[in-house]
Amino acid sequence: MQPIVFISRLVRANRGALAGVLVALAALPALAQAEDALPSWTDGASKARIVAFVQGVTDPTGKAYVPPAERIAVFDNDGTLWTEQPMYFQLAFILDRVKALAPQHPEWRTQEPFKSVLAGDMAGVAAAGEHGLVEMMAATHAGMTSDEFRAIVSDWLATARHPRFKRPYTELTYAPMKELLAYLRANGFKTFIVSGGGVEFVRVFSERVYGVPPEQVVGSSIRTKYEVRDGKPTIVRLPELEFIDDKAGKPVGINRHIGRLPILAFGNSDGDFEMLEYTTNAPGPRLGLLVHHDDGEREYAYDRKSSIGRLERGLDEAAQRGWVVVSTKDDWRTVYSEPRR
Amino acid sequence: MQPIVFISRLVRANRGALAGVLVALAALPALAQAEDALPSWTDGASKARIVAFVQGVTDPTGKAYVPPAERIAVFDNDGTLWTEQPMYFQLAFILDRVKALAPQHPEWRTQEPFKSVLAGDMAGVAAAGEHGLVEMMAATHAGMTSDEFRAIVSDWLATARHPRFKRPYTELTYAPMKELLAYLRANGFKTFIVSGGGVEFVRVFSERVYGVPPEQVVGSSIRTKYEVRDGKPTIVRLPELEFIDDKAGKPVGINRHIGRLPILAFGNSDGDFEMLEYTTNAPGPRLGLLVHHDDGEREYAYDRKSSIGRLERGLDEAAQRGWVVVSTKDDWRTVYSEPRR
Repeated sequence: MQPIVFISRLVRANRGALAGVLVALAALPALAQAEDALPSWTDGASKARIVAFVQGVTDPTGKAYVPPAERIAVFDNDGTLWTEQPMYFQLAFILDRVKALAPQHPEWRTQEPFKSVLAGDMAGVAAAGEHGLVEMMAATHAGMTSDEFRAIVSDWLATARHPRFKRPYTELTYAPMKELLAYLRANGFKTFIVSGGGVEFVRVFSERVYGVPPEQVVGSSIRTKYEVRDGKPTIVRLPELEFIDDKAGKPVGINRHIGRLPILAFGNSDGDFEMLEYTTNAPGPRLGLLVHHDDGEREYAYDRKSSIGRLERGLDEAAQRGWVVVSTKDDWRTVYSEPRR
Repeated sequence: MQPIVFISRLVRANRGALAGVLVALAALPALAQAEDALPSWTDGASKARIVAFVQGVTDPTGKAYVPPAERIAVFDNDGTLWTEQPMYFQLAFILDRVKALAPQHPEWRTQEPFKSVLAGDMAGVAAAGEHGLVEMMAATHAGMTSDEFRAIVSDWLATARHPRFKRPYTELTYAPMKELLAYLRANGFKTFIVSGGGVEFVRVFSERVYGVPPEQVVGSSIRTKYEVRDGKPTIVRLPELEFIDDKAGKPVGINRHIGRLPILAFGNSDGDFEMLEYTTNAPGPRLGLLVHHDDGEREYAYDRKSSIGRLERGLDEAAQRGWVVVSTKDDWRTVYSEPRR
């Protein structure tokens, strides 16, 4: 008798009890292969802390047990799940959009940060910072429907290449982090992205690339309105900022969208400080982690002085707060997955 | 050999294949008992439409098949999942709060809708409508942390009683709708509440009462800010409206929070019209449903003339749009579950 037939008969014979058995079984494979679930991580202290935390919160007989419904894990995106140098990838997208739309906006020739974009002056663009980024986002991402916007992002992701690695941006996602997302989910966690980037930008690839569905992406946003156009319902994107999901905005976004406190938060910059503080400074088992980019050879090395992804306060306070600082050089065996051939 | 031991050995022997088997099996019991999953529904056309839709989208060999990730179902709350007469239950909560806070707000004695509340003039309160409700929500729900607010709501739900039925409000949730939520989830749907009510109000009971976790509740909101008080991170509620999740706001809220189009929407009033329009006016299998309250004996009878939960355009256009109009009198065998003894 094939296993499927056997189990199928069991199901029919004893549905109620079996539902419980199936739920219990679903966790088994993950627990059994905990040690192998993170092959891109070296066997150092960081991996050990992660595995110990997950084993603790999933052990129903232990004091650190957390019911599955409360196993909420939040991840920053830029610099945490994928590379953010030499510029935020969404900024690269925005620059392409600014160039494409510039003929319709003569005023941009004298107006920052557009002026710098059109002049190819990356220092000027960087000087406008996260706020300049969000301004350009509003200016270049509005005046279309959400469906149209998704199509534009999707086309861009399929064709654009990173200037140094010459690979699609979605291939510059971190293998160790994708393993961690899968490992957490296999252990009953619900994984969320909490990004300073635009929520409708990240959602285009989050499910395919990270296994995180759109409803589990929290991000910055512009206002939208509902409109029936030629009998077809649409969501229209308006040129007005609604929410910046960065710094103290991250706990606000988490409370608004998720409505309960995560037990694990993973970031990489001081823009994630409040998210980690909010997540870890509460009773019960909690884990805060920061990616520290110290591998200039395989990726990029930057922290206190960087205009993008600056990590200063996090490094200063990680030890006293019990946060794990993950070294991309020492803790990651692999940075990116192999390119698709 | 006990089934658990047998299956456990199978798991160890062949993890990869079995993961798929388990996923497939998880759906089996639900499919097999489809006919019995909705015992509080009479065997009429409404139930038949629902069951046919669910069987269609879950049949992997059929043309109407929808992958589980896209099986998003959205439900209004007031009048759809629980009673909304003689006033929105959150309004009853708000009235209690207004009375409790009135001594600190002498200006309320001359200012609507507060004046009517304090005078016990329910017609005056009703005249202020949904917008007045949201104003009172902002005025009475701010100036505290989210945790404190949840505790206040929780205490109120435990003690307040409905004026007619003399039961806790959370017991005045509809048995047929709770069965439907469970039936959809057993068939791989993700169920969301999309309520005109306050998101942090609904989240207090949504998981316990409906099985809908807080992260799957979309609702109206006031602004919040992150603040560390005495070393403890908090979310502080501000007296400023952020978002009204009603009428054309519902599609906006759905797009913002869920990020993809639902395939099933269930409402009861014209405040849900745009949500149903947005959900059903697109390619692929889609189902729109409206609760029509026509049972004044077991619950309440109201539609076109009601100031609360008015249903007019929905009734006029349901037939041409293919929406199912569910009669509380004819389609529901039971309205409420038996009281807990």
